[in-house]
Amino acid sequence: MSKTSFFIPRLAVIGVGLIGGSLAQALKRVDAVGKVVGVGRSEENLRKGMELGVIDDYTHDPVAGVANADVVVLAVPVSSMQDLFERIKPAISSTTTITDVGSVKAGVIKAAEEILGEQSNQYVPGHPIAGTEQSGVGASFAELFDDHRVILTPTKKTDPERIEMIRSMWLACQADVLLMSVRKHDTILSITSHLPHVLAFALMELLASTDEPEECYRMAAGGFYDISRIASGDPPMWRDICLMNGDEIRLQITRYKDVLDSFIEMIDKQDAAALENAVREAGRIRAEVASYKGGTTSVPGSG
Amino acid sequence: MSKTSFFIPRLAVIGVGLIGGSLAQALKRVDAVGKVVGVGRSEENLRKGMELGVIDDYTHDPVAGVANADVVVLAVPVSSMQDLFERIKPAISSTTTITDVGSVKAGVIKAAEEILGEQSNQYVPGHPIAGTEQSGVGASFAELFDDHRVILTPTKKTDPERIEMIRSMWLACQADVLLMSVRKHDTILSITSHLPHVLAFALMELLASTDEPEECYRMAAGGFYDISRIASGDPPMWRDICLMNGDEIRLQITRYKDVLDSFIEMIDKQDAAALENAVREAGRIRAEVASYKGGTTSVPGSG
Repeated sequence: MSKTSFFIPRLAVIGVGLIGGSLAQALKRVDAVGKVVGVGRSEENLRKGMELGVIDDYTHDPVAGVANADVVVLAVPVSSMQDLFERIKPAISSTTTITDVGSVKAGVIKAAEEILGEQSNQYVPGHPIAGTEQSGVGASFAELFDDHRVILTPTKKTDPERIEMIRSMWLACQADVLLMSVRKHDTILSITSHLPHVLAFALMELLASTDEPEECYRMAAGGFYDISRIASGDPPMWRDICLMNGDEIRLQITRYKDVLDSFIEMIDKQDAAALENAVREAGRIRAEVASYKGGTTSVPGSG
Repeated sequence: MSKTSFFIPRLAVIGVGLIGGSLAQALKRVDAVGKVVGVGRSEENLRKGMELGVIDDYTHDPVAGVANADVVVLAVPVSSMQDLFERIKPAISSTTTITDVGSVKAGVIKAAEEILGEQSNQYVPGHPIAGTEQSGVGASFAELFDDHRVILTPTKKTDPERIEMIRSMWLACQADVLLMSVRKHDTILSITSHLPHVLAFALMELLASTDEPEECYRMAAGGFYDISRIASGDPPMWRDICLMNGDEIRLQITRYKDVLDSFIEMIDKQDAAALENAVREAGRIRAEVASYKGGTTSVPGSG
């Protein structure tokens, strides 16, 4: 791994889990960080982070954690962001840059602007599209973001130099960094991630509510197994996503129901040509998606 | 592979593709078959079957193919079954046993009973739950059915000795054989296979009909990739399944839309507890499905 000229003397990671821990490790891998301070509630997890060398120090107190930090990363469920902004606000100096890794951006940005006020120019909203089925610092690893996309959704208020700083941070992690409007991020993610997860959750519920669920479980073939893999998402995380990106998700579910109606209509009309065409089109689109796949081997919990 | 006492002197395989070809190879593997006659339209495919040793002889004429066959296997799309029953009927002797591998059973059985009349007792409806993304005899292999389920859906008319014969045939292929009512088969498969495929097709259509499809393709993360894998189904096969199991599929789509409505309702009410519970339940059900998975590594086109 080539070294980088980018350097963060002091990094505070609030939420030392898969994402926060992997970020610390990715930066350490290229000597792009000095001291990493972990902030969290679980003593056990933080100790483990110390033992693994992921963090260099830790505290349960966000205020103490962010003191003198050059960069503060909020790597907690999106529903906890507002509370954290409130708690760290008094400790944010003018030289601190704040970023987050939340899967939904509009709600987090709104909270940041309301709470941080003028200091919200120091906050660069971010979302790394990466994850695994595991969670906790023990599951973190330096390569998690290699060739994965990280989306930044700065607003008009965001300080351009800080955007550049957070961009450099993720580039040092070997990620591809994209800038996107908040709205576009939340719409696209509702289509490519949030809706598919809801569909998988709903499919599980349908399966369980059949007359003979055990029989169905037993017969569920590979296709079912694949389509349902993302049904194993982290409940609090997906609760938050559904709540905070509700408008977009509702819209996509509604659109999706319309497409399902078109399938019912083709079946009702016994329209063989239209059905065959729909399946062929689906295969074509799927091949196009596959052609873009590249390194985005994201998984449950990647939001 | 241990040898078997079961033996079919002459087997006619109508449709020498992935399933038909694999069946022939699986039986040859344990010396459970004498001569395999392939019947099909594509000269090239049949020649390839000869070269690969999958079949020992071939013809384009179903009547010639089934002459003197002890077992006739129809391994063609379900929409072609009716036509084939009509064509082979004159050549079916009283010692011939007929079976098929169709993914939908009620429609095929109805056609068989109407066309074969009293001889329909010689027909044992079957459905091996196995497949790969490939098709054609070149993709066939002897191990395809190993530890996979094969469902037989005999009717009251079906000769018990012939049920036993076809059961033995699939057991010789190392498959697990289940007997099930026609109705139950078509219902369970509509839930565990047909609906998930329709959901994947519909998701692709939704994706393509967004404002910026390319952008979505690019951002589609791993979760999307998995859930969409089964969107690459064989168009004529899935057209037929939608047409022939339309009542069941319509019912499941409708039930599924109701579940989606419950998600919209939870979002509308901002019901955090219900959302978290729904996601947790989905994960639990998914884990239960996974615990049953075993050898059913079925894939697109496995119906």
